[in-house]
Amino acid sequence: MAPSTAKEAYVTLCTNDSYAIGVLVWVESLKEVGTTRQIVVMITNGLSQKMKEQLAESADKVVEVNVLDSRDNVNLDLLARPDLGVTFTKLHCWRLTEYDKCVFMDADTLVLKNIDDLFEKEEFSAAPDPGWPDCFNSGVYVYKPSLETYQKLLKFAVQSGSFDGGDQGLLNSYYTNWNRISFLYNCVAQSFYSYLPAFKQFGKDVKVAHFIGAVKPWHHSFDVSTGKVSESEFSGHCADFLRHWWNLFVSRVHKRLPEEISPTFPKE
Amino acid sequence: MAPSTAKEAYVTLCTNDSYAIGVLVWVESLKEVGTTRQIVVMITNGLSQKMKEQLAESADKVVEVNVLDSRDNVNLDLLARPDLGVTFTKLHCWRLTEYDKCVFMDADTLVLKNIDDLFEKEEFSAAPDPGWPDCFNSGVYVYKPSLETYQKLLKFAVQSGSFDGGDQGLLNSYYTNWNRISFLYNCVAQSFYSYLPAFKQFGKDVKVAHFIGAVKPWHHSFDVSTGKVSESEFSGHCADFLRHWWNLFVSRVHKRLPEEISPTFPKE
Ligand SMILES: O=c1ccn([C@@H]2O[C@H](COP(=O)(O)OP(=O)(O)O)[C@@H](O)[C@H]2O)c(=O)[nH]1
Ligand SMILES: O=c1ccn([C@@H]2O[C@H](COP(=O)(O)OP(=O)(O)O)[C@@H](O)[C@H]2O)c(=O)[nH]1
Ligand SMILES: [Mn+2]
Ligand SMILES: [Mn+2]
Repeated sequence: MAPSTAKEAYVTLCTNDSYAIGVLVWVESLKEVGTTRQIVVMITNGLSQKMKEQLAESADKVVEVNVLDSRDNVNLDLLARPDLGVTFTKLHCWRLTEYDKCVFMDADTLVLKNIDDLFEKEEFSAAPDPGWPDCFNSGVYVYKPSLETYQKLLKFAVQSGSFDGGDQGLLNSYYTNWNRISFLYNCVAQSFYSYLPAFKQFGKDVKVAHFIGAVKPWHHSFDVSTGKVSESEFSGHCADFLRHWWNLFVSRVHKRLPEEISPTFPKE
Repeated sequence: MAPSTAKEAYVTLCTNDSYAIGVLVWVESLKEVGTTRQIVVMITNGLSQKMKEQLAESADKVVEVNVLDSRDNVNLDLLARPDLGVTFTKLHCWRLTEYDKCVFMDADTLVLKNIDDLFEKEEFSAAPDPGWPDCFNSGVYVYKPSLETYQKLLKFAVQSGSFDGGDQGLLNSYYTNWNRISFLYNCVAQSFYSYLPAFKQFGKDVKVAHFIGAVKPWHHSFDVSTGKVSESEFSGHCADFLRHWWNLFVSRVHKRLPEEISPTFPKE
């Protein structure tokens, strides 16, 4: 295994206890594939104290961020754009300048294979979005923390908005010359419906599954005896990926979670 | 307008009268955007005589192709793989060596803007498939006719098969180092459902709409008085693209079609 590189990190975000469940599983998935990089979680004041403690035990670093914590002009303009709230929270990742390079990953991603080779890529690298493959999906991206970039991104956002109201539209408008990485690094778990033969051919090589959409893995429930996931609502998520998520949750996360912040899944 | 370049051509394929309707509209769409290149249609013996005449009037060249017209070893092997039939028919496009460069386009594509700049691209250029964007969609591609490539492709197909049973799987396995062109050159007409804000942002720039799937534009019907398309079955095709297809059909194709080969749409 390569020596740990303290100046590179995987970064994610959660603004509430629900997404934090996703983060806890995401952290375990990174550890399981033997990453040598740091794991950083950005949180807001929307998390319970107990969940913050869980995250602090699990990740290398937890950073509390707040959209409106500085008082410069850009941030004053932001007050007029409440629609872009969570988007701006994600942009905080550019402020983690104690790292030379980072990989941002959504809290609803699951790492299946070691992806430390992503740190060889430059800013801005991402995988195509299957909906509109000229755009990248912003659930996984390689970037370089920089206060200058952070300010530029905020300014750009306030001036131009985001064509989808979220960080993906904003980042795609800002980084028009992005570097394409394989879809295997951000495989939207629904996509095997659109082109099933490709999923059958390449599915075993998927490195990161991304559970996009309103229904997340932690919204389902899981039967420990049968190892089966019961979908609370049809999500289109690949059953194998979902099972992997739940296996990690059951074996590595659930037992240490305080009763009141556990998801639907009942404790034995 | 640039001078006509006789050694470059748009190429399509139809194996029956139904797809030939698509070809007739495709030809008109190319003419409407003022292409300076030749238009070539490959056909098989599955077409009626009347339809062949229509195509001959409409395109610059009609070439009858037949999978098993040569008697070399590869073709004998083909007899054992009837599943790959239409796939191999498409491969005939590499035999059009009177052209230096060609753009193959499916019969279910519709050209919305001039795309002659595609001839500046090298073999093999194509646009990402939205289902699995590490693969290209084989509905539009730039290639260089060559008997050598044709033979290699046949050999490869017989040996390796196609992971999706069609030309897309085959060509993706063969051309692993393909050159990516924008999704705007092969916009799968369903994709605006998956990422609607991107379609709203970039939809006006679409150069080619591609009506993938079992239901094709000519399976619907059209009301001339209202200008509305009635979908025979939900296809997910963008209404604007469908209307454009039907407007071309009504204004430029329908009147000269013999009664017996007209699609569902009734003549006034
Ligand atoms: O209420 C929210 C919404 C989003 N997120 C973070 O923002 C990411 C992007 O949102 P999501 O994954 O739900 O979007 P999708 O991938 O489904 O488009 C999440 O993974 C979280 O990291 C969050 O912390 N709280
Ligand atoms: O019975 C057939 C099936 C296909 N094709 C040709 O092969 C292309 C690819 O098939 P299709 O467009 O139906 O596939 P899709 O794009 O829906 O995957 C068509 O556009 C036609 O040019 C044909 O001539 N006859
Ligand atoms: Mn996500
Ligand atoms: Mn097609």
